[in-house]
Amino acid sequence: MPNTSPIVSSMEWRYATKKFDATKKLSKEDFSEILEAARLSPSSFGLQPWKFIVVKDPKVRQSIREAAYDQSQVTEASGLMVLAVNKKINSAYIDEYIFDIAKTRGVSPNSLKGFSDMLKNSVSGRSTENLISWSSRQVFIALGIILETAALKNIDACPMEGFDPKKVDEILGLEKLSFASLAMVAVGYRSAEDVSADYKKVRFTKEKAIMEV
Amino acid sequence: MPNTSPIVSSMEWRYATKKFDATKKLSKEDFSEILEAARLSPSSFGLQPWKFIVVKDPKVRQSIREAAYDQSQVTEASGLMVLAVNKKINSAYIDEYIFDIAKTRGVSPNSLKGFSDMLKNSVSGRSTENLISWSSRQVFIALGIILETAALKNIDACPMEGFDPKKVDEILGLEKLSFASLAMVAVGYRSAEDVSADYKKVRFTKEKAIMEV
Repeated sequence: MPNTSPIVSSMEWRYATKKFDATKKLSKEDFSEILEAARLSPSSFGLQPWKFIVVKDPKVRQSIREAAYDQSQVTEASGLMVLAVNKKINSAYIDEYIFDIAKTRGVSPNSLKGFSDMLKNSVSGRSTENLISWSSRQVFIALGIILETAALKNIDACPMEGFDPKKVDEILGLEKLSFASLAMVAVGYRSAEDVSADYKKVRFTKEKAIMEV
Repeated sequence: MPNTSPIVSSMEWRYATKKFDATKKLSKEDFSEILEAARLSPSSFGLQPWKFIVVKDPKVRQSIREAAYDQSQVTEASGLMVLAVNKKINSAYIDEYIFDIAKTRGVSPNSLKGFSDMLKNSVSGRSTENLISWSSRQVFIALGIILETAALKNIDACPMEGFDPKKVDEILGLEKLSFASLAMVAVGYRSAEDVSADYKKVRFTKEKAIMEV
């Protein structure tokens, strides 16, 4: 493993920031860049079963904090995004997606019929629960990309699953859009008082994490 | 969005490579760096419910290719890794994890009792299916990080879910380890003949992917 790799150094540097410096604001450009990386994230078949909700309204941030066991990161970090899964990946969704591909690439939707049929088969063969579980995994690809992108830019982040998703869905009006909140990421800059910044990172050894065949 | 961001450029550049140049090999250092980024990936509570299987044996690669609907990437890409989820996140697993934290940070396991109890509650409150679904999402954080890391280094990658996981588990002996394969990533360099390299990337507009509140 190259000690000098800036990517590995960034991954070592990052940690789930527990206390943010509420006075340090992320630039609009930096926040947009993280969102853009998320938007470009890969997903199975390119289906993008997600939405990224940027929460700016301080009152909404406060309500979400209450739904997140009063974790201070929710309101004290410069930015907050909620990652939600689309619970309605169905035939109509696929038609819309195929239309989007056709338009982007200047081909006829009909020329994509084989791909469309394959997608529809793949989706209709899953139970609702399995479909949401599969779609949710895709959202976590974007979560990984958000966290790596922030780290590469020396931006602190705290990924969070510890909140009442039903309450957050209600606060953000996600249920009526057929979306469900899965995770949140607070982004900004660590407080000098965050003692957890100094905790040594705990990860499996290479021998435990990696198997060679 | 800054047009000049190298991260965004890398995310634009990458695509699910369908045809690799079988003669172009990834350096050992580059492959190790991608794995190292994966090993350092964040996960809920830091539980790391995963294993990364590097498949080097050409015969095993061939068997996996057969279990993956004969997709050529499996054998023609320079490297292949399989991402598997740990299906046995239980009380014993948590005890081991707590011991690992205590050892790494030089504290007594007893001082982590509050955290340990919280983890055990969180895990025992989930059905087996829900637990595996939750753990599987964590694996996809690492998948995102693998794909971004490869892209940043101008290494081509093809993430794949299109394979028979039971067969792949059998080939790799994962079932008896209580792991299950979820995704694979072929890594290497694109073939000049890969027509899909020129396909325009299809992603939601910012307006569709991102919601502001």
